[in-house]
Amino acid sequence: MRTSELIFKSRREVPQDAEASSHQLLLRGNYIRRLTSGVYSFLPLGYQVLRRVERIVEEELDRVGASELLLPALHPVEIWRATGRDAKMADVLFGVEGKSGSFVLGPTHEEAVIEAMSPDIESYRDLPKLVYQIQTKFRDEPRARFGLMRTREFIMADGYSFDVDRDTMRASYQRFYEAYQAIFRRVGLKAEPVEADAGSIGGDVNHEFMVASSIGEDHFARCRECGYQANIEAARAGERAGVPVARDIEPVTYSTPNAPGVEIAVKALQAAGAEVEVASMLKSMLLVGEAGQLVLALLPGDRTLNVPRGMRLAEDVEMGDFVKGYIGPQGQSSRVTILADPLVRTRPSWASGANQEGSHTVGLRLGIDFNVDRFENLVVVQDQDPCPHCGAPLELVRSVEVGHTFQLGLTYSGMLAHARFSTVDGQELPYWMGCYGIGVTRVPAVIAQQYGSPEGDAVAWPVEVAPYVVSVVGVGATKDNDVVAVARRLHDLINAGGVSALLEDRDVSTGVAMRDLELIGSPIFCVVGARSLANKMVEIRDRMHDRTTLVPIEKAPAAVIALSRELTSECR
Amino acid sequence: MRTSELIFKSRREVPQDAEASSHQLLLRGNYIRRLTSGVYSFLPLGYQVLRRVERIVEEELDRVGASELLLPALHPVEIWRATGRDAKMADVLFGVEGKSGSFVLGPTHEEAVIEAMSPDIESYRDLPKLVYQIQTKFRDEPRARFGLMRTREFIMADGYSFDVDRDTMRASYQRFYEAYQAIFRRVGLKAEPVEADAGSIGGDVNHEFMVASSIGEDHFARCRECGYQANIEAARAGERAGVPVARDIEPVTYSTPNAPGVEIAVKALQAAGAEVEVASMLKSMLLVGEAGQLVLALLPGDRTLNVPRGMRLAEDVEMGDFVKGYIGPQGQSSRVTILADPLVRTRPSWASGANQEGSHTVGLRLGIDFNVDRFENLVVVQDQDPCPHCGAPLELVRSVEVGHTFQLGLTYSGMLAHARFSTVDGQELPYWMGCYGIGVTRVPAVIAQQYGSPEGDAVAWPVEVAPYVVSVVGVGATKDNDVVAVARRLHDLINAGGVSALLEDRDVSTGVAMRDLELIGSPIFCVVGARSLANKMVEIRDRMHDRTTLVPIEKAPAAVIALSRELTSECR
Repeated sequence: MRTSELIFKSRREVPQDAEASSHQLLLRGNYIRRLTSGVYSFLPLGYQVLRRVERIVEEELDRVGASELLLPALHPVEIWRATGRDAKMADVLFGVEGKSGSFVLGPTHEEAVIEAMSPDIESYRDLPKLVYQIQTKFRDEPRARFGLMRTREFIMADGYSFDVDRDTMRASYQRFYEAYQAIFRRVGLKAEPVEADAGSIGGDVNHEFMVASSIGEDHFARCRECGYQANIEAARAGERAGVPVARDIEPVTYSTPNAPGVEIAVKALQAAGAEVEVASMLKSMLLVGEAGQLVLALLPGDRTLNVPRGMRLAEDVEMGDFVKGYIGPQGQSSRVTILADPLVRTRPSWASGANQEGSHTVGLRLGIDFNVDRFENLVVVQDQDPCPHCGAPLELVRSVEVGHTFQLGLTYSGMLAHARFSTVDGQELPYWMGCYGIGVTRVPAVIAQQYGSPEGDAVAWPVEVAPYVVSVVGVGATKDNDVVAVARRLHDLINAGGVSALLEDRDVSTGVAMRDLELIGSPIFCVVGARSLANKMVEIRDRMHDRTTLVPIEKAPAAVIALSRELTSECR
Repeated sequence: MRTSELIFKSRREVPQDAEASSHQLLLRGNYIRRLTSGVYSFLPLGYQVLRRVERIVEEELDRVGASELLLPALHPVEIWRATGRDAKMADVLFGVEGKSGSFVLGPTHEEAVIEAMSPDIESYRDLPKLVYQIQTKFRDEPRARFGLMRTREFIMADGYSFDVDRDTMRASYQRFYEAYQAIFRRVGLKAEPVEADAGSIGGDVNHEFMVASSIGEDHFARCRECGYQANIEAARAGERAGVPVARDIEPVTYSTPNAPGVEIAVKALQAAGAEVEVASMLKSMLLVGEAGQLVLALLPGDRTLNVPRGMRLAEDVEMGDFVKGYIGPQGQSSRVTILADPLVRTRPSWASGANQEGSHTVGLRLGIDFNVDRFENLVVVQDQDPCPHCGAPLELVRSVEVGHTFQLGLTYSGMLAHARFSTVDGQELPYWMGCYGIGVTRVPAVIAQQYGSPEGDAVAWPVEVAPYVVSVVGVGATKDNDVVAVARRLHDLINAGGVSALLEDRDVSTGVAMRDLELIGSPIFCVVGARSLANKMVEIRDRMHDRTTLVPIEKAPAAVIALSRELTSECR
């Protein structure tokens, strides 16, 4: 390929509203273009990166025996009603009212794949089945962000497995899991599989594949000591040693008018002369359990509640005669179940609401002034919390989710009469499912963020996703016929060797050429300069390792091809 | 690949509601599965055919220098308002009301590609540009039909060209046109480019690529003599010789109460003793022109009106004091423009409405009893009409539209301020566009219709789109170890030779195996039988030409590979 034929036009100006450097790069280099908020076109250069990512996904999933298919985007609303997800995912579903019916634009395809596959799953002999598709999804995102990171239309590689029981489901899960690790390695990303929460997809065991990245909207907790990793919703801190409760004090109640909530209460108490700080306040939060019962959750005032699965925060109308803003655990154990985070054991006493309007109590002691029915992890982990496995301090890493794998089990098949197979004994049972997703359109952005310059004006794409592996440029080429001829010959030989090369053949200055080539981002540059040419040498730049070598002209194509192989094997 | 690993399950029963044999085949062979009316999943076997078609499209469009990109499906409604097509295509547009805005699901992408490309088209130096995408489209089809033929969600390969003037637009058009011919050849279809009407896309010159097929919903007219071809809306018949008008008769008016319209009027007139037939009645139809003026169109009673471009049928309220059901051309020339088809010259006299309720007049003569302002082709062509070029009889061919190419000219760019470039002289002018589309998901159905059995239980896919080029099957293989070993070895050698092979390795009878393999449709079968094996021979079946040859075992892989090449070159 020659730059003169490329549909490419670099932009010098920093694009407005592009906060992340990867987003700036993708706009400046004409990889993508915004059609409207959260909706992007992939221009030819961007489409090439995307296609290369897709090919890698296909190769690795084919390798573990998954078969590619293609499901529709337009789903009849009935199949979403059957699983109750029309309500559960209502906040992000795009509905379509057509003359021909009511549809949902699929943001995920568990329902649709069950419709497609069930007629072929009659007996245990038909299982396991592993399938996947690379397909466009739609989500009515309230907040589109960071270019390709959070969009309303995006491409996902979503896989599904169907099995006879939990064990074979786990084996299928493992096949996808391994393929995912290979995929992310090949696209150049260090993706960490971390334990995660299932959210609206449901199921039991699941992992998010997280890439540490400054454009991340998520965090995961990592223990450098033992390797424990979990995303912020799923992570649990290890227990800290408890301390004995204070025996030499008594609770004292202060008048704290108009001081509901921790922060303001602390100020009011301090003004009244009490020795408290945010960390010694007890947050007492009313929750509603699955059966509708009220639960009181206790945690330190400086921590954030991680609402336990199946529970939710109580709404005002559900609070009955609990005094909102002034709830305390004292005297409550007969009327409500009290859950406490283990951290509640780590102080001799606590301050809390006094269960009456405008009053707080200081000096409340666990087991004396209030009781706890059950201890349970209730707080969102934070930096330096102890690892639940080894106790070493956890580190919170800002990160992007690039993939997610779920052991769904019977979550969907259990509620659908046609999602069944007959066992060896002739029983009709629901099949065991797994589901797996890679955010394909997000991947180029994450790669660009990692391999691009902080200014968003240069990138070195990992070799397997680069639009062109090698860029050949003659320095001062417009003047010197030798330089032009050598550059062209090298380009042709490298291409003939099976490595995609781009020749800079435009009538532009060396400065413009180099700036544009840095946006196009070949990991290898082959620079033909008049001076080195006099010594029959050309320069090969390994941009991934920032190494430059001078090579005799006739050895350059082989050297470039070898370097390309070396870069490839580093990502395998 | 082995059949035991294939996600495939043949169905013996004839699928309900599948009228066409191609639709039956695609359902029986598990190529596709219906999710809801007009919405299909491509199962793994069908997806392979689809992908092979897509690869051919990509190769041929890349060859003519078009660059692949990817535009979104979700279009902000504003860009459709800007071209007025939100109204013009309202009957098929799926609208999406999201929390994040109002969208249209793109059924075509002229608007979206202009948004994507315009920022890169600043001056004449940036032109021409040829781009294309393979992308999912949506249409709220009132009548989904024939499986993949007319669906609500489908994949199109849509291309767009941008040029400085009409001549270069034509050159770009020619590049797509030639690529299309190559694409259809390679997928095994004889697609005829026929002159066509522009419909809601607009523009001037355009061609439909039509494949003669019994599942066609369209017709095109073809002259076997001179090669003239046009679709039914665009085709014009050649002129027939006129005849002198009758001099020896006078018009006679008959009372024909309650007899509006041609068929019923003929009966009433015949009952009253007049000598008339449907072909000698004059249809007099009121039209409304672009400026709102009334136009009277005259054509023989046995022909169908082809409403001229820019006109439409008048509605009842627009007819003023014209007597609906009894209009005749006599005495009208002062108040309305009269257009007549040249066929009006081919009879000495005509019968027509008498311009008063309940009366018809017989014996009306052109130039004496009524006048015509302009002669113009007004009738839909029919079988045996004379060719407009050579006069030979035209033939009407039932056909499927698989592609459509348009010279749009300034149709879109002319109304959009940002669809402009600066010329060599510094003028700002709208660019000249072309647009081009192939109905990718429709192609496998058209191929299956042509290359499948009338019963919908067997197909021989053209070699470049076949999921597997060769199927290797051992006859009586379950019993005979030699047969099994030879079949496996041949399969491996053929695959190693770069030709995709499928090995029948299931524990099923020869009858079941052969029936399933005929559904999977490799164009080449390699049959290893115990009897021929005794003579160290195997059977190679060329299913495209219905030829069987016996070949020595050791020569079989080379023979199969050579046959595959031969079949490929026949489609180039």
